[in-house]
Amino acid sequence: MKIDASRLQTSMEEMARIGATAGGGVHRLTLSDSDKDARDLFASWVKSAGLSLSVDEMGNMFARREGSDDLATPVMVGSHFDSVPNGGRFDGSLGVLAALEIVRTLNDREIATHRPIEIVNWTNEEGPRFPPSMLGSGVFAGAFERDFAYEVRDTDGMRFVDELERIGYRGKLPCQPRPLAGYLELHVEQGPALFTSGIQIGIVEGIRGLTWLRITMKGARDHAGPTPMHMRKDALVGAARAISAIRDIPGNLGSDLVTTVGEISVSPNAINVIPELVTFSVDFRHRDENILTRAHQAVVEVSGNAAKQEGLEIEVTPLGGSTPMAFDSGVIGAIEETCLDKGYSHRRLWSAAGHDARYAADLCPTAMIFAPSVNGKSHAEDELTLWEDVTRSCEILGGALVSLANQP
Amino acid sequence: MKIDASRLQTSMEEMARIGATAGGGVHRLTLSDSDKDARDLFASWVKSAGLSLSVDEMGNMFARREGSDDLATPVMVGSHFDSVPNGGRFDGSLGVLAALEIVRTLNDREIATHRPIEIVNWTNEEGPRFPPSMLGSGVFAGAFERDFAYEVRDTDGMRFVDELERIGYRGKLPCQPRPLAGYLELHVEQGPALFTSGIQIGIVEGIRGLTWLRITMKGARDHAGPTPMHMRKDALVGAARAISAIRDIPGNLGSDLVTTVGEISVSPNAINVIPELVTFSVDFRHRDENILTRAHQAVVEVSGNAAKQEGLEIEVTPLGGSTPMAFDSGVIGAIEETCLDKGYSHRRLWSAAGHDARYAADLCPTAMIFAPSVNGKSHAEDELTLWEDVTRSCEILGGALVSLANQP
Repeated sequence: MKIDASRLQTSMEEMARIGATAGGGVHRLTLSDSDKDARDLFASWVKSAGLSLSVDEMGNMFARREGSDDLATPVMVGSHFDSVPNGGRFDGSLGVLAALEIVRTLNDREIATHRPIEIVNWTNEEGPRFPPSMLGSGVFAGAFERDFAYEVRDTDGMRFVDELERIGYRGKLPCQPRPLAGYLELHVEQGPALFTSGIQIGIVEGIRGLTWLRITMKGARDHAGPTPMHMRKDALVGAARAISAIRDIPGNLGSDLVTTVGEISVSPNAINVIPELVTFSVDFRHRDENILTRAHQAVVEVSGNAAKQEGLEIEVTPLGGSTPMAFDSGVIGAIEETCLDKGYSHRRLWSAAGHDARYAADLCPTAMIFAPSVNGKSHAEDELTLWEDVTRSCEILGGALVSLANQP
Repeated sequence: MKIDASRLQTSMEEMARIGATAGGGVHRLTLSDSDKDARDLFASWVKSAGLSLSVDEMGNMFARREGSDDLATPVMVGSHFDSVPNGGRFDGSLGVLAALEIVRTLNDREIATHRPIEIVNWTNEEGPRFPPSMLGSGVFAGAFERDFAYEVRDTDGMRFVDELERIGYRGKLPCQPRPLAGYLELHVEQGPALFTSGIQIGIVEGIRGLTWLRITMKGARDHAGPTPMHMRKDALVGAARAISAIRDIPGNLGSDLVTTVGEISVSPNAINVIPELVTFSVDFRHRDENILTRAHQAVVEVSGNAAKQEGLEIEVTPLGGSTPMAFDSGVIGAIEETCLDKGYSHRRLWSAAGHDARYAADLCPTAMIFAPSVNGKSHAEDELTLWEDVTRSCEILGGALVSLANQP
């Protein structure tokens, strides 16, 4: 499918102005004012494109283009507009806006598809504000209860459901599994594999499993001067020893495993006070569930040892995650065929980032397309995908989508 | 000197209501609204006691009681009302309010002293909001330029001088060295030495030197999933390795050395993003300047190694500090004599906490008195000194103060 590259670029640039940061990224946390603005802009474009819009009780937005058989089970395509703090302009937005561009193209050329097409903007793909991530698609797929999601609070104590209500996107449509003929998602790779090998299109075979933990260590608050070293229970020292050890776990368990401590908070956090309480996150990912289990055990063990060495209490709280998921070979084949048609170089790979497609795959045949990320950068203001790669990946998405939508 | 224990206790309790925390401590950061409230309350008590109050351009408050020879060089006594975040009720307040109680007692009994007595409340003894600590006494003693202090900013970017102006305590009196016949300060020990040995009074021989550093490590921000471990530059991992190693420096350099990392900030601080930038503080103290120098070198070395291992840029910024200071043997003798008179058990010790007396000692004969801290706890909401120890230590302060104030 040939698409209008400049119209897609214009949409991407207009969307990137919402929550734009000085460093060239976007800061568009879930259910913030800028998330609302992004939704409103998308809704206006959906209306201009003549699509019908519905919003479910999780705030997931569905823009539907009729099929020539409008009673046929629809195919779904999309991604998300929320971002991590000071994140990139392509992460998520590309997947929704490429889908919109494909539908605009079908409209312009008056091309009908057998099945209806639904473009989706999922709520809370990222999750830093309201962990766990992928709450919108997770509830849609039945992986989480709606009321579990509603009660999640951000670090200021705001509830998910209250913020959803506040920005006006608490819809009436029940958020629950329903029949879908297929699901496709285009996303930037967010890693270096495609960029460093110079390959144009990534065909995603599956999503690695992900576990999130929160670890709290509690020691004793004391003055940094008169308390002898041997009488201290320094929660930050315990956390530091744990963080170092968690960094070293992949070296022991296998090279594909990644572990990250991204978030830490220290109390009282004053230069001359021994830290009493430290909380930090742990994120680890692998395609093999056995390795994930062993990594989990290793994180608990090294953290427990670090806490013990410093005389600290420790608590490990699971924050959710997802099991590894292999995508559908038929959908993977449809993407591959489109790449061959177009003559674009491509390779198969597993995603280490979580995506809403993970949950869609519980409901219907699913796969994903990756566009190259310059230097593999993502979740950063300098995240970049070249416009020619944006165009190419949108064309592949369009070809595969029409192919799915015309399946009998 | 016999003092009115219940009047002193009432003053202490009234002061502790300003900035009181739910956990029984006080949160009274320098130049905050509660610092202003504490100053206003003190000023009203100074007025009731018939003292004249002057405020200098650093906000230091001086309450003067006339001497029988009012042209004689005055003696000074006092401490501070500011606190660390969620600190204790006795730290600082005891020293100012015990001095006030002594002057009230002298007034009640119509006892004149040869020299004038000035009670001081120093600005910014603690320093977590406006580092370095002891800015008020430091400028008074000529250790810092006034304009250096004025330009210090808190983490919200507020300037010291603007906050001083805002709370109405930017006085006209120049803040500069002037002749003093002696300086005394009563403070809680903030460590376990007196409490664990059951000794009633500590006579402080000197103050350990203190160095504060701020270390910044810069890596690369990336998505926690797709970035392979070997391609990461994780600033939090570098900081964690440094913090562990800094904890271990005293074991190598001598048992009296203490090192603390109390404060850390991480950017972007999100669960699924590899940390790009980490800043943390280092506080280390010893009575021997050579050991301080070697500790400084060790901190720089282990932090540099940690940064190198993770491929990070590193910057080490000195945040000030103070050299070790031995107190005056004459003033120490006067305190000791008062203890013997009263029959209170006592011992000499070095302070590991910094105090304004450190700077006063640059100007005149100085020493300090310590009251026992229950369990050695300080800079914490459960900081506690028993009322009988408050009374005893105030009596010793009174005896030594009158002795100094009557010196020819």
